[in-house]
This record gives sequence, structure tokens and C-alpha cells, in this order.
Amino acid sequence: MAFGWIDEQAQARRRAGLVRTLRPRPADSPLLDLASNDYLGLAHHPEVTEGAARAARTWGGGATGSRLVTGTTELHAELERELAAFCGFEAALVFSSGYAANLAAVTALGPHGSLIVSDAGNHASLIDGCRLARGATQVVGHGDPEAARKALATHEGTAIVVSDTVFSVDGDQAPLAELAAACREHGAGLVVDDAHGLGVLGDGGRGAPYATGLAGAEDVVVTATLSKSLGSQGGVVLGPARVTGHLVNAARTFIFDTGLAPAAAGAALAALRLLVREPERAARAREVASELHARLTAAGLEAVRPDAAVVSVRAPSPEQAVRWAADCRTAGLAVGCFRPPSVPDGISRLRLTARADLSGAEIERAVRVIGETRP
Amino acid sequence: MAFGWIDEQAQARRRAGLVRTLRPRPADSPLLDLASNDYLGLAHHPEVTEGAARAARTWGGGATGSRLVTGTTELHAELERELAAFCGFEAALVFSSGYAANLAAVTALGPHGSLIVSDAGNHASLIDGCRLARGATQVVGHGDPEAARKALATHEGTAIVVSDTVFSVDGDQAPLAELAAACREHGAGLVVDDAHGLGVLGDGGRGAPYATGLAGAEDVVVTATLSKSLGSQGGVVLGPARVTGHLVNAARTFIFDTGLAPAAAGAALAALRLLVREPERAARAREVASELHARLTAAGLEAVRPDAAVVSVRAPSPEQAVRWAADCRTAGLAVGCFRPPSVPDGISRLRLTARADLSGAEIERAVRVIGETRP
Repeated sequence: MAFGWIDEQAQARRRAGLVRTLRPRPADSPLLDLASNDYLGLAHHPEVTEGAARAARTWGGGATGSRLVTGTTELHAELERELAAFCGFEAALVFSSGYAANLAAVTALGPHGSLIVSDAGNHASLIDGCRLARGATQVVGHGDPEAARKALATHEGTAIVVSDTVFSVDGDQAPLAELAAACREHGAGLVVDDAHGLGVLGDGGRGAPYATGLAGAEDVVVTATLSKSLGSQGGVVLGPARVTGHLVNAARTFIFDTGLAPAAAGAALAALRLLVREPERAARAREVASELHARLTAAGLEAVRPDAAVVSVRAPSPEQAVRWAADCRTAGLAVGCFRPPSVPDGISRLRLTARADLSGAEIERAVRVIGETRP
Repeated sequence: MAFGWIDEQAQARRRAGLVRTLRPRPADSPLLDLASNDYLGLAHHPEVTEGAARAARTWGGGATGSRLVTGTTELHAELERELAAFCGFEAALVFSSGYAANLAAVTALGPHGSLIVSDAGNHASLIDGCRLARGATQVVGHGDPEAARKALATHEGTAIVVSDTVFSVDGDQAPLAELAAACREHGAGLVVDDAHGLGVLGDGGRGAPYATGLAGAEDVVVTATLSKSLGSQGGVVLGPARVTGHLVNAARTFIFDTGLAPAAAGAALAALRLLVREPERAARAREVASELHARLTAAGLEAVRPDAAVVSVRAPSPEQAVRWAADCRTAGLAVGCFRPPSVPDGISRLRLTARADLSGAEIERAVRVIGETRP
């Protein structure tokens, strides 16, 4: 039978304790949320949800076509202008997801004959971008600019270095300044995914490239998502107008995908304007992360020092990580549980996300529950 | 300079008359729209836009995380249940885009050691799925079930045949029954993208697989988009629960992408319920397409007989296609213009889409403008 082989894989997964199932959540969940990527607590902000509602009413339920046919509204153009201005880049191009933005940037900037140097800890969407690109990919050690420099030295011609700015699993930051220096020595471009940096790092949340002085550089391209700090859905590529113009003409996930829904564009734009008005939200997310880390460490847990808003806590095994997360849930706390194959190093962990709107009492409660349920 | 090579490509594109630029549209465009994929005219239906608005208010501006962490709401589950029931499948899984759904289905069902037989006219997202999949891809002639049969005969072990049901460029239908028969002879699975069939073909718009008696078959998997007939954004995979369960565990664009925004889920659900209540919309879209084709042909234009709601009109060259579409626009009519590299056969054309809500007078006006502006 055509798909019978799936049952064998499912059985193997069950035996290994690695089965994933969906757990639909209600609108009024009583759980304390330390699992989402809603770093600034804006997904439910009335200005953001009204931004979505108003955009749907004005522009329709969907974009109705690809960006090059009917799928670009003045709302998309407005969002792109304001995102570019906020992050300090010449131009921005919005996609239906951060995944699509990463596929676009890596494939369009890693053409046939080029070299793509990719950090071993990169997000799945960057890895898939490398796989789809016509250029040759060389994977280098995680957070190792010297390895990137060596890889660039082996190649004549066009090259890019591709990295997350903040890695999703452990929340650690890439050595952006050193990567940029390595790129400049070799005339290579730097392509970084700031999904977990935008809204959290840099002056008022302008992101990790801005914080590193790389915003607006002609050899730097940044991708990001509208679905984390900006509480919406979608992705964006920021860079020189030359690059975004190239993507309009060459990136398949731009040309052949329906444009971002107006409601998502409207929600992201409202969140961006809120962040411009209330820049302290970014610093607060970082403070919450630091406090979480300090308290977890004081409680004797093995937590990675956060560079942004992700706090990772090691678990002894996939099974124990799953049970630990389930016990937290029973005690009223939602935490992320990362385990193979979602973790590049094979280490299972709880993944906590700091939110700018968590109170001191909520942080205390979260740390107490995690400590009491530890395996 | 890192991205200097882009300028050379841009110049070559300019010389060839193939530069694409974005044209943001206003909310109150006076153009008669025959360019969007809003086949049922539902993107601006008040129930659909209210569905989006209500969902954003209830569930937030974004899903806040990946489907396996916090990104599955009861709204997603509801949408999946109703989509599966409507199309006649055991289960459904919703994605942030149709592109992501296709990448997921092809990569997860085309594992290492398997054969993927792919129609030469398939959509970019299916092609990218083949490129990303670990299985070996064999491209066969467009709409040629005998070629698919021969390809399957060369392979021992797991195999799938991948095809659009309605091809985007010319609007022609795939020989679904023959493809399914070829698959069954060889124990292969059939994976078809019904992006342009859902809402248009089959009883009440249940889609091309339903119309062919393939709905609910254990060896058939259907992908579709929520951004065309359903006036929203997102994608879906429909099939046996075994398959959707496998995708939850194995498909990277499911596991590592933020869940579909609540507003998009709410808009799609409202559109689906409208379609259930007003099944005549599907037949009306097909009638409009037939009438468009008949009138264009009577006016001496070379139009392809439509199998669904897409009507393709041949143009003599890319430059003339662009000028033709621009002249239509000047005369108040928005039409699609497909040209290399977006067309697999290199033939440029105007692409018209029938909408269920086009009036007879609008059809007449559209045909008159297209005839008067022909190159």
C-alpha cells in the first residue's frame, strides 16, 4: 500500500519516545506562557489586533494574488517602508513567512558557482535555503568566524556567509562583527536571520545588525520574521534596494507565492508603531530573560546565559524533557520542549521565552514550577 | 563589492525586457479585476473579512509560535476538521502558505531511496519540494500519464507521482484518473496540488480529486491553498490521518514555521462555510470562464479552453505581452501577464481569471478591451 511505510517510521518514533502531537489551545488558556515567541507581549495588544481587523476590512481577507500580480497593496508598501526605516536599511521586502524570506534570500544570493558558508546551528529555513540554492554550501562550526574566514579563503568569486543572529535553540548570539569582518576581507556578503533579535536587541529593538553597526551596509542583508516580536505572521528581507529588487525578479518564494494577508501586514505595522512609541519594551524583554536565567541558575538548574529573550534549560534525555514540560503544564506553566530532531546537537532542553510583559511574580512562579518539577 | 554581480544581472534583464517591478494597489482601485485568484469573489465578502477581524480579536494578531509549541489554536483544529470534511478526506493539516504545504508534502512523502515522478508543468513550489526531497526526481512530459507509468515501472520501492490538478499558466487540468490508475498499478502514492481546483471544480467546489472520485483514498494526498477561492492566506494538506500525522513529525516547513495567523484561519473558515451554504458559486466561476473563452475566441483571439477558472491568451512576445497588459490597465482592466521565467514553455500570455461575481456586462467589457488592445 502506497503510504504503508509511514507506519513503520511511526512505530520507530513511538519506541524512541519522539512522537509529536498537536495540542490545540483554547482562547482563554489559564497557562502562564513561557513557550511562545511573543517576546514583547504584543500579539494580543488591542492596537495590534485592531490593526489586523481594520486591514482585513479595508483590504480583504487575502492579498488575492502573488506580489507581482495583484498581491501588493499600498499597505504592503507602507509596512516595507517603515520596517526598512526602523531597522536602518535602504529597502525591505515582505513575505508570507520568515521561512519563505530565508529561502528567498539564500537561493537568490547564492547562485550557481558561488559559495555559501553556513553556521552548523542555523535554523531549518536557512538550511533549506542552502539546499535549494545553486551555489555550493560549506557548513562551518557553530559561532566560529575563523572557520568562516577559512572557508571563504578557499573560494574565488561570489560568496555569502549565512547565520542566525540569535540561535533559536540556546538563545546564544552569533559573532556578527567578526563574521562581517571576515566577509569584508573576502568581498563576501553577509546574510543574517534576525528572527529572534528584532524587537529585542539594539536601540529600541532595532535588531542585532543595528546593534553591531551593520544596518544599512551595502554588503549586509537581514531577514526577520513578523511573527515573533511583532505578534503577527510573515517575513521580511532588509538590505540595499539592489538586493530587494533582485529578489523581486529572482526569488521563487517571492514570485510564486500569494502575498502576505492584509490582516498580517496590518498587525505587524501596528506592532512596529507601538515599538517605535514604546522603545522600552525591548530592554524589558532582555531584563526578564536575565532575571529568569539568574533565578534558574540560583535554583541549581543548568541554564544558558541569554543573549536575547530565549533561555534554554538542559534536560537529561528526550523522555525526561517531555515529562518535565508536561509536569510544568500540569502545574499551570507552558514551556517549550526541544528535542531531536529539532536540536542540532541532539541535546534535549526546556526552552523558555522571556516576555516584556511578564511580572516579577510571574517570573518567580515560573522558576518555582520549573524547579519543583525537575527530573 | 559583495553584491555587485547583481547589477550585471539586472542590466541583462533590462535588455531582455524582463524586469519586474511592484505596483502597490490602492484599496479603492477602479480597475476591473481579471488578474487575481479570488475565483469566488470572497476576499472582500463581509463574512470573510469579519471572520478575519473576529479571529484576530479572539486569538491575537499571530499564532505566537510553531504549530507544535503554542501555534495550534482550537480555531486551527476547527478549520482543519471542516476542510477535511468538505473535501472528503480523513484529515487536514494547515500551513502558513500553499508553498509551505507543497514543500512539506513532497519532502515528507519522497524520502531517501524513493522515486518522485513530477509533471514538467508543475508549480514552482512542487518543483522546489522535489529539489528539497531526499528521493530521486524524474520529470515527465506535461499531462502524460503513460510517461508517469513508464517512470514508475523503472523503480522498485516507495514512489509518488506529483502533479498540479489545474495548471496555473494555461488553466488546463491534469489527467487525474489516469495518473491514479498508473499509481495503483505500481503501489505508488498520488500527491496533487488542487490550488486552482478547490472552490471551482467538483460538487459545490469540493475540488478536482473529489470530482474524480479520489477523495478519501488511502493512496491520495491533496494540497491546496486558502489564498485563492477561500480569499485568505495559507495552505493545507489533505489525506489519510497516517499522512498528516507523519507530516507533523517529519515536515520541516510544518515543524519550524510559525503557525498560520488566526485572522487567516478565521477568514478561510468563514469562506468555506459560505461555500457550503452557497455551492452555486463554484459552478458560476466555471460558467464565467467558459463565457470568457467563447467570447475571446469569437473575437479571434488565441485562448486556451478553460478546465477551471483560468483563461490563458497567447501573446506574440514577452515585450508585446507586457505592453498588452499595460494597455488593458490604461483602459481600466487588470489582467495577469505571464512571461519567462514564470512560464515553463517560454510562451508569454495574458492570464485572465474568471470570478464567480463577474457580471455579464463586466465580461463583455473585459473582452472588448482585450480585443481592442491586442498587439
